[in-house]
Amino acid sequence: MDLTSESTTAAVTESFAETADPRLREILQELVPHLHDFVRKVRLTLPEWEAAIRFLTAVGQKCDANRQEFILLSDVLGVSMLVETINGQEAGTESTVLGPFHVVASPERENGDSIDLVGGANPCVVTGRVLDTSGTPLTGATVDVWQCSEDGFYDVQQPDVQPLGNGRGLFHTDTEGRFAFRTVVPSHYPIPTDGPVGQLLLATGRHPYRPAHIHFIADAPGHRRLTTHIFVAGSPYLDSDAVFAVKKSLIADFREVDDPEQARRHGVDNPFRTASIDLVLEADRVG
Amino acid sequence: MDLTSESTTAAVTESFAETADPRLREILQELVPHLHDFVRKVRLTLPEWEAAIRFLTAVGQKCDANRQEFILLSDVLGVSMLVETINGQEAGTESTVLGPFHVVASPERENGDSIDLVGGANPCVVTGRVLDTSGTPLTGATVDVWQCSEDGFYDVQQPDVQPLGNGRGLFHTDTEGRFAFRTVVPSHYPIPTDGPVGQLLLATGRHPYRPAHIHFIADAPGHRRLTTHIFVAGSPYLDSDAVFAVKKSLIADFREVDDPEQARRHGVDNPFRTASIDLVLEADRVG
Repeated sequence: MDLTSESTTAAVTESFAETADPRLREILQELVPHLHDFVRKVRLTLPEWEAAIRFLTAVGQKCDANRQEFILLSDVLGVSMLVETINGQEAGTESTVLGPFHVVASPERENGDSIDLVGGANPCVVTGRVLDTSGTPLTGATVDVWQCSEDGFYDVQQPDVQPLGNGRGLFHTDTEGRFAFRTVVPSHYPIPTDGPVGQLLLATGRHPYRPAHIHFIADAPGHRRLTTHIFVAGSPYLDSDAVFAVKKSLIADFREVDDPEQARRHGVDNPFRTASIDLVLEADRVG
Repeated sequence: MDLTSESTTAAVTESFAETADPRLREILQELVPHLHDFVRKVRLTLPEWEAAIRFLTAVGQKCDANRQEFILLSDVLGVSMLVETINGQEAGTESTVLGPFHVVASPERENGDSIDLVGGANPCVVTGRVLDTSGTPLTGATVDVWQCSEDGFYDVQQPDVQPLGNGRGLFHTDTEGRFAFRTVVPSHYPIPTDGPVGQLLLATGRHPYRPAHIHFIADAPGHRRLTTHIFVAGSPYLDSDAVFAVKKSLIADFREVDDPEQARRHGVDNPFRTASIDLVLEADRVG
């Protein structure tokens, strides 16, 4: 009956043998030996186990409607990016992490609308297309966009400064697969450091910064949903993103345009910056 | 720059290289590859990752001053027992899990006091000694005791039924290393199932029951602190404890005594049950 260090693992794994859902059974029966191997490998002490319990509890308690500290933890441990990489598209645009700020629904907007509701100093026009892997434009695709302000904060982080929905928009592609919006060039920014994940970064000498980027989720009937970012070329931290999410193919030039006529046509001050982005979706895998 | 499934692990591990505390660095640099290996092995999907984030968040949010759902999760995954086994005494009484109910300080009590403040039906006298590994009694050791009621609930689970401190006591050994208290025979009971850990047990077809036991933490100067249980011989679930904590050496006979004179001397109704327990502590490891 007595369980040793090794037989405990077998007993716990066996305890999940009657799990009705075979996938849940598979996941738990792999989780247990990996978790136990880790505990045995480092010979985790009781005070360290207690510290781990306190840390995980604090991570959970930091979460609320606008804050997802467990996603942040997954991000800084590279787990989010690993899951994205494993499940990423093979032929389409590369994916990257969802991040912790997709916490409110993006407001429906018309192509050409501005998602900058606070009047930033560095106007930017983003245009793009949603395409299938053969280059055919996808009409009626949704393009969910969210980004931080020029000061590096998302709307939900600054309820007194930004109206909810600032930096966010849900667009629909036109008959040529196009979408377009006005915004500001996002800033690089630190992930929130006022919680337990910030304490982890501090204790481990890691900086909390992410390079400047705009988030996208593109979705079209019959195609795989794409969650990705477009990074701003030249941004600091492209080589040391705190959440390991940069892929070369996702870095876009946000070039400056100095042309009063173009500025007038887009409804932005001159000069302005512009980026052009194609989001390529694979067809849904069949069964 | 682009990270593959494998190189992500190396990049995250490397990101912890500057951790000032060498033990924290060691733990994180082992945690990351074990966690990533698990994710790769099961090829965790995005919806599964999202479900894991939701689950862990719910575990954290279920915690409060009287409820520790992360300890419960650690318990049902066998991690708590594994940590105890790794760190257990070699020569003294075997240890077992702390459990999630050591959440309030046990009231100081005198030897012979009752920890049953609600008048249970099955009185029990527990006597014991705290000894070193050569059998020498340890004077002035503290013996922290907590247990559930005859109905299978701890005080903090039933604030309207049990006064806080019911089933709990902090005792000190006398000059012969002895401690003694009156109580009721604890019941087997289900771990709390009204939270996410309960949902996990339900989804995996596992029962939530623990065999009847009394918790002990014995502590004496110059000796290693012992966290253990004494299990009630004959209790249901001794062979399938939901938290894998049973060790044969920790099962004690709670024999019935039918002797009005003894009952009178102990201040309990006749007949009553009694258990005698020696708790053996190793000397502190030097250095």
